[in-house]
Order: sequence, then C-alpha cells, then structure tokens
Amino acid sequence: MKKVTVIGSGSWGTALAVMLAENGHEVFIWSRRQDAVDELLKERTNKKYLPGVVIPDSIQATTDRKEAVDGADIVILAVPSRAVAQTVRDFAPYLKTWQILVNVAKGLEPETLFLLSDVIKREAPQCEVCVLSGPSHAEEVARKVPTACLIACENEAVAKLVQEEFANPRFRLYTNTDLIGVEIGAALKNVMALAAGMSDGLGFGDNTKAALMTRGMAEMKRLGMAMGGKAETFAGLSGIGDLIVTCTSMHSRNRRAGILLGQGKSLQETLDEVKMVVEGVNTVQAACQLAEKYHVSMPITQSIYAVLFAGKNVEDAVLELMTRDNKAE
Amino acid sequence: MKKVTVIGSGSWGTALAVMLAENGHEVFIWSRRQDAVDELLKERTNKKYLPGVVIPDSIQATTDRKEAVDGADIVILAVPSRAVAQTVRDFAPYLKTWQILVNVAKGLEPETLFLLSDVIKREAPQCEVCVLSGPSHAEEVARKVPTACLIACENEAVAKLVQEEFANPRFRLYTNTDLIGVEIGAALKNVMALAAGMSDGLGFGDNTKAALMTRGMAEMKRLGMAMGGKAETFAGLSGIGDLIVTCTSMHSRNRRAGILLGQGKSLQETLDEVKMVVEGVNTVQAACQLAEKYHVSMPITQSIYAVLFAGKNVEDAVLELMTRDNKAE
Repeated sequence: MKKVTVIGSGSWGTALAVMLAENGHEVFIWSRRQDAVDELLKERTNKKYLPGVVIPDSIQATTDRKEAVDGADIVILAVPSRAVAQTVRDFAPYLKTWQILVNVAKGLEPETLFLLSDVIKREAPQCEVCVLSGPSHAEEVARKVPTACLIACENEAVAKLVQEEFANPRFRLYTNTDLIGVEIGAALKNVMALAAGMSDGLGFGDNTKAALMTRGMAEMKRLGMAMGGKAETFAGLSGIGDLIVTCTSMHSRNRRAGILLGQGKSLQETLDEVKMVVEGVNTVQAACQLAEKYHVSMPITQSIYAVLFAGKNVEDAVLELMTRDNKAE
Repeated sequence: MKKVTVIGSGSWGTALAVMLAENGHEVFIWSRRQDAVDELLKERTNKKYLPGVVIPDSIQATTDRKEAVDGADIVILAVPSRAVAQTVRDFAPYLKTWQILVNVAKGLEPETLFLLSDVIKREAPQCEVCVLSGPSHAEEVARKVPTACLIACENEAVAKLVQEEFANPRFRLYTNTDLIGVEIGAALKNVMALAAGMSDGLGFGDNTKAALMTRGMAEMKRLGMAMGGKAETFAGLSGIGDLIVTCTSMHSRNRRAGILLGQGKSLQETLDEVKMVVEGVNTVQAACQLAEKYHVSMPITQSIYAVLFAGKNVEDAVLELMTRDNKAE
C-alpha cells in the first residue's frame, strides 16, 4: 500500500482517486476549494465533475497542501494545463526528492512552449516526473470500463513503479520513455478534436471526420518528430488511441466545443455552454508557434486558430482542409 | 468525358456511378440481376442498397457483359470480395489492354491468400489494376459529404489518370503506389471493425474501443510490413482513416455485425440480421493464415477467428485482449 495524493478534484483526478483507493492505496485528494473537500468528505460525491460515482470512505480530502503531500509516494497532478506551473510552484516547498509526480493534464505552456513535464521539472526539480496518457474518459474509468493507457517517464524504472501501483485488470498501463511523443500527442489531439467536432457540427459525415483525423494525426506526428519524439509513439495509445477517443466520443469536451463552433456559435458562447476547461482552445496558439519554430506544416492547427481567434468562417475552414489540391498521399 | 463502367449495383458501386455521372462521364452499371437493371432504368432508384438516391437519367444499365465494358476507359469492380475472381474471369474476354480496372472490394482470396489486385491481374493480365480505398461510406458519398480517398496503382501515371477523372471538390483522391499496404489495410480493417463492434455490443466504452483499434492498427501494420507494404500507408487514409470510419460509424456493416455478436447472437443470426455481405467474416481466416505464413503476432485477428468459428466466448475474448500482461508499449 502506498500513499497517493491527487491534486485537483476534477473528473479525471476523482476517477483516478477512486480507482487507486480500490487498488488498496491510501488516497488523499487535495482541492483548493473547501466546498469541494466538504462534499467529498461528507456527501461522498463529486456531483459537478463525476456525477453518479460514490467516493469510497477510505479517501481523505483536504485543502492543506502540506498535509496532502506529506509522506505521499506518488502525487498525481490533475489540474487544467494552465494551472500546472502555479500549482507545482505552490506545492514545491513540501515535495521531497523521492516523491514521484504523475501529470495527467494535457497541454503546453503558452509563454515558453514547454511540455508540461518540463514545466513541472522547472518548478519541482527535486522530483521524478511521469506523464499518464491514453484513451481514458474519466466517466468510463469510474464505471470500470476496460481501459489501456501509457505511463511515460525518461526513467523507465520509475514508470514501472507507477505501473505496478496503478494497473488493475480493468486499467492496463504500458510504459514508454518518449515524453516528447506522448506529450505532443496528448496536447495536440485536443486541437484535432475541435476540428473533428466542427466537421460534425457543420453536418458533415464520418468520411469527413476520418479524413480530418488522419491528416491531423500526420500533423501531430510531424511536429512531435521535429521536436525529437518517436514515430511509434504517435501510432500508440497516447497518439492515435487518444485521438480516436477524443474525436469520436460525446464525453469529449473538446469535441463538444467543436460541434458548437461548427453550429455557428462564437468562442465565448461555446465556452459558456461547455462550462469545463476546453484544453484545445488553450493549446492551439502554442501549437501554431511550435509549428513555426520547428518549420513544420500544420494546416489543421492553423485553420482552427484562425476560426477561434481571427474570425475565419468555420465552414470555409473545414472545406479548405478537405479540398486542397489533388496530390500523392 | 470518359466511358466508365461500374460492375455491380451494390451501395458503393451505385454511389460511385452517380458521382461519376455528375462529374460528366458516360456511366454504365452492369448487374447480373435483370430486376436491378430494370429498377435502375425505370424507377431510377436502387432502393435496397442506396435508398433515397435518384439515379441520373444519363446512367445506363445492362446485364450484358460485352455491352457494359465495350469501349469503357475505366471499369470499376464493385462486387463482394468473394465474387471478384469469377467476375473478372467472366469479363476477361471483353477487356482490352488499354482498359483500367479499379477495384473497390476489400478482402483477400481465401484459397490463395492473394491480394485482390493480384487476383485481378491473374484473371485479366491485359489490364492495368488500381485500388480505390479510404474512409468512404457510400451513403455519405451519395449525399456529397466531403470525402478523401486513395487511388493506388503500381503505375503512378495510371493512378493519376483515374484521380483526374474521379476527383471533384467533394471527393478528393490522393495517389499511392503501395498496393500491398493499401490492400492489407483495406481487408484487415473489416476484421478490426468486428472487434470494435463486439466491444460496443458487450457494453464496453469508448476507452476500450480506442485501445482495441490502436492495437488492431499495430497488428495490421505488422502484417502489411512483413508482406512488403510501407508503414506510412498504414498511417494514411486507407489505413488509420478507413479503420476509424469502419470502427466508429453506424453505417459500417462489419461493426454492426460485431455489435450483434457482442450481444450474444450467433454468427448465423448476425449474418441473417445484417443481410448484406460482412467482409470481415470472410477475411478473418485468410488473415490468420497470413499471420502464420509471415510469422506475425496478430492476437486480435486470432481472437475474432476463435469467436466466429471456434465457439470462443466473446466477452472472454475482448477481456483477454485488454488484459494481457503489463509491459512496455
């Protein structure tokens, strides 16, 4: 039995906390909101983010940072990508060298274009940093739907340790050492899900969406490889696997946001309606900058940026992506 | 304007015929059934296979083989994979060296394990053979949903000629010379769609299906590369693109068949209910034999075979595929 702390009480953090408690670990959830902690402890629910799921009595919750991570073997960072840097900065004074940080947020740091693992290493250089990624809607993990994910770490022994503690017959974990490939796939698939959703919102078909996803995957891989990632990673669970689930499932907020945009809603109306964080909207600008920095062609990413922030017509954008000149594949 | 003949009056052949007539070509449909020809010519419909679509007056139809292909620049083979060899054999006496055959069937020849392009070359060695593949539900192409496909031919100039005649702003075609990669992807994705459907039929989630599709793609690629195909082809429209559309769309017969099997129906009950040809069922045995011949590990394909033909329990099969030992990806 290990002590595992989950920082953040969103849907994915809560689903992982429940799963890890059922794996037999001592689990703490840290939330910055006292009302969230109170609901977890008293009602044993998280109605806003994971409705219908009972929080096991063994799970503890707190708003106290030191108490949360004190003695924790593994600390899961389950906050929106934009909050990662500040969150780790706030926790850093309480983190010890032997503690393993597992990031589950997917995105890039807008100001520096850093991978989130690099952001975390900068803020808490004393810790080992892993990334958990793959096709894993929180709602389904909470329902014990068979799921397979990746745990990535430059230090494979650390990845194996996390694998050992997290995996169970309904949640398989595979190790990977290609952080760049895993994190670029994780961040960019949210942008592609916006594109896939837009196509759906415009009333286009499965043919259209599959073509966009195929080209989106190629675009993600081009960037990832230019940055030093491996092609195989993009063909795996954190690449094509996560892209598929994010672009085709109604659980995906990014896809839902894309559908609303495709139906003609403005970005603000869309964000108001989805309510939760739409990571693709935060990632697309950094992705465009990375495309420029690494001289990689990323037409889908650039079109999505133009729709979101430069007033481009969404139907024109999708049709343009589908109707570029005939050529060899 | 070219003369284009479509052999077969199923959904895909009919949708292509309508599209090519709208592209301005002189289009003939050949069917072995006089009642199908009569319906096409008199009612201007194909109610069984492409309901709701009007067949343009310019399209001609016949049961006469010679009349159908006489003077045709391009002949599309749109028959089930099992009928390809006999159909080409029957037409061979009327086919000229300058005629291009475009195969749209997806499968393998069970007896020889040949790709369908090799079957066609064997039966009509005088013709150039192309393969049309990619994410393209007939119903959507008929509704002019933006679609992108591949036209593959060892002779790139021939592929370009077909591209020129077939493409339009709503139907993009990319050329490719890797027939092995294209055809193995096309054939095997139907097996993976059975697996994806079974997962859905068992009530598993998007996580499960995405993991199965990712591993299915890896399995297809392993076989294709062992046979001489290219990795890039599997990452393209005829690989991952077609896999996505086949595994996630309700238009897919293979996925629908998988759902019924996952719900506990027998193979015969399933085939009776789907009514149309379920290519994956015909392909899975040949795929298992190819796996053996080329010493390639194909656990999903082998499990599907065991469920269909060796009485294996479908839930056990899917859970086994999801719960093999923890390891590196």
